[in-house]
Amino acid sequence: MDSLEQSLALIRRGTEEILLEDALRQKLALGRSLRVKAGFDPTAPDLHLGHAVLLNKLRQFQELGHEVLFLIGDFTGMIGDPSGKNVTRKPLSRDEIEHNAETYQDQVFRILDPGKTKIVFNSAWLNELGAAGLIQLAAQHTVARMLERDDFSKRYKSGQPIAIHEFLYPLIQGYDSVALKADIELGGTDQKFNLLVGRQLQEAYGQEPQVVITLPLLEGLDGVQKMSKSLGNYIGITDAPEEMFGKIMSVSDTLMWRYFELLSFRDMTEVRAWQESVRTGSNPRDIKFELGLELVGRFHGTEQARRAKEAFIARFQRGAIPDAIEQIDLACGEARSMAIANLLKNAGLVTSTSEAIRMIRQGAVRLDGERVEDAQTACIAGSEHIYQVGKRRFARVRLT
Amino acid sequence: MDSLEQSLALIRRGTEEILLEDALRQKLALGRSLRVKAGFDPTAPDLHLGHAVLLNKLRQFQELGHEVLFLIGDFTGMIGDPSGKNVTRKPLSRDEIEHNAETYQDQVFRILDPGKTKIVFNSAWLNELGAAGLIQLAAQHTVARMLERDDFSKRYKSGQPIAIHEFLYPLIQGYDSVALKADIELGGTDQKFNLLVGRQLQEAYGQEPQVVITLPLLEGLDGVQKMSKSLGNYIGITDAPEEMFGKIMSVSDTLMWRYFELLSFRDMTEVRAWQESVRTGSNPRDIKFELGLELVGRFHGTEQARRAKEAFIARFQRGAIPDAIEQIDLACGEARSMAIANLLKNAGLVTSTSEAIRMIRQGAVRLDGERVEDAQTACIAGSEHIYQVGKRRFARVRLT
Repeated sequence: MDSLEQSLALIRRGTEEILLEDALRQKLALGRSLRVKAGFDPTAPDLHLGHAVLLNKLRQFQELGHEVLFLIGDFTGMIGDPSGKNVTRKPLSRDEIEHNAETYQDQVFRILDPGKTKIVFNSAWLNELGAAGLIQLAAQHTVARMLERDDFSKRYKSGQPIAIHEFLYPLIQGYDSVALKADIELGGTDQKFNLLVGRQLQEAYGQEPQVVITLPLLEGLDGVQKMSKSLGNYIGITDAPEEMFGKIMSVSDTLMWRYFELLSFRDMTEVRAWQESVRTGSNPRDIKFELGLELVGRFHGTEQARRAKEAFIARFQRGAIPDAIEQIDLACGEARSMAIANLLKNAGLVTSTSEAIRMIRQGAVRLDGERVEDAQTACIAGSEHIYQVGKRRFARVRLT
Repeated sequence: MDSLEQSLALIRRGTEEILLEDALRQKLALGRSLRVKAGFDPTAPDLHLGHAVLLNKLRQFQELGHEVLFLIGDFTGMIGDPSGKNVTRKPLSRDEIEHNAETYQDQVFRILDPGKTKIVFNSAWLNELGAAGLIQLAAQHTVARMLERDDFSKRYKSGQPIAIHEFLYPLIQGYDSVALKADIELGGTDQKFNLLVGRQLQEAYGQEPQVVITLPLLEGLDGVQKMSKSLGNYIGITDAPEEMFGKIMSVSDTLMWRYFELLSFRDMTEVRAWQESVRTGSNPRDIKFELGLELVGRFHGTEQARRAKEAFIARFQRGAIPDAIEQIDLACGEARSMAIANLLKNAGLVTSTSEAIRMIRQGAVRLDGERVEDAQTACIAGSEHIYQVGKRRFARVRLT
């Protein structure tokens, strides 16, 4: 495999789609540093491993010698939600945007190479565009094609309102690619339509259209919903080493392979060899340790990762968890989470929720070896943990 | 009838719709000078009596003490057709727009009172709006409501493309009403949707919505198609007195009443008395003289009007047109016009088109008593004229 094909294989890993792969091959063959664009909201960032999927891919491009254009969409951020319906999308001030941009840098430079990253703000060219420029931009696309976008199409058919400015946002995002002369744009699968608008606009403005690469949305700790802060199923980029390690160890043995593909930089040949060894009897926990070490190591350094692993093991030993523990599946239903008191009762570890609460207050309840301090603790669907009441009552509970 | 009701009756004459009449009544009752807006293209004006319907209504408002905001849409004019498909909508330069504005003034002040007219350019506030302001504007309207506009709805259903900027133009026109704090906006029936967008936007921006008054599109000389320069069925505001008078005399006896309602300032009681007198045997030609005298008088003064009438009568006498002339109906078909040579042959005045051409070259063909100089002359559908070949061959031909 020549070096171009090696680069392609690296880029292809974990992607959903590359449009068009031939064009990507041609661009890579140019030998020059390519301009790789990715857009981010200007709202207060609190990045988690879901974002890391994209950031990792950007880093791979940097390792191949290319330049990342880290675009902060401050222009629309300063408008807020002009329909006034969404109170959480208040207009941001210049100060807030600059503050958020700094926070972004603190976080993303844990993954990206600052020397090959250019942070850009689209207000730089969009303030200049003017109403006349925006009209000319809007002339480049038709209503019918915009209504083909999946979410617009559904809302239109079901009679839900679409405000006209929503048609302008994909055009603005596309125009950013024109202004930046982007060679490549990366985004989540939910961004595919908008990324393709960028291609179309670049052509209309006489540029070679960008290659579009979509990346899957990473499943959260529950293995079902996409990772998101509001669902509580996330691993934050700024989580402390032990917390991060513990969360990684809590993912299911199946989801672990997905995280290897999308988050790890380990060679896929190696990953596949591990999969084979688990099939033939190896303990998946030992391989999950590798994932934990790599990811915690990336964000906190090797030494911190090693300590987090040791602390994790020590906690289990402190709890003196026996080797064979009964496995119980419990269904959460619609709520997708269960209060720990209910969980303990449903798992048969206590006879009533009031007993559960009493035991928690006495410090007699442990979760993965660690004392549960709060009777209000909620356990989320998709998680799998060892629960302990007193010295001898254990259960491994998987919430579904 | 009190003075408010008299004003209302005057305003109501010849209008298609007043939305809402109650609001108009309230505004008139305020006793202050109202701001009456009407928008015009910034392209080279060549106004005809079709435009005069609207201008007359504006003048009536001036006579009632109100102020006319004569809006020249230079902002979009300077953009041209951003889709680049319409070569006739080239972007206009600042110089061209100013030149056109002067030409407008030359023409419209033949009808409007310059002392109560403010000429405004929407670039004054739209250049300031910026892309951000336009986005906020676009958030005030939904795609579904825009697609209710008749022409959009038809195009969308039949799969014809609608460029997204076309959705912005009604919003811009509506925003002009916000910027001008218009009390009333006038426009053709084809503008109704856009005028209503103005109402909606004024409400969204916390203003009392404007009253919308639509005026019918005046039929041209053919009595069928709307008056338009490109169809050739028009009477220009700058037409010379004799030409204007002759064109007015060529309208059919039915269309004459429509012109009285929409173009004349004669009291409708008087007009209805004339209608009655024609029904009981008066010659409609004598009443058409009144229309000709009034309209030519308005644009060229009473003396010129009187002379134009005399010249018209003299021409007929010179042509020695007999009183009883055979009436012939000829159908044009799709082309909606007929070359004079064909017309003469079809009417039986000549035996072949080559005879017709020969007779024209000899100066032996007259149209309403006037010599036809050009064998290429085309006669348009809906017109009714007296054609004469030599001394004795006459026919009154109505083209349909």
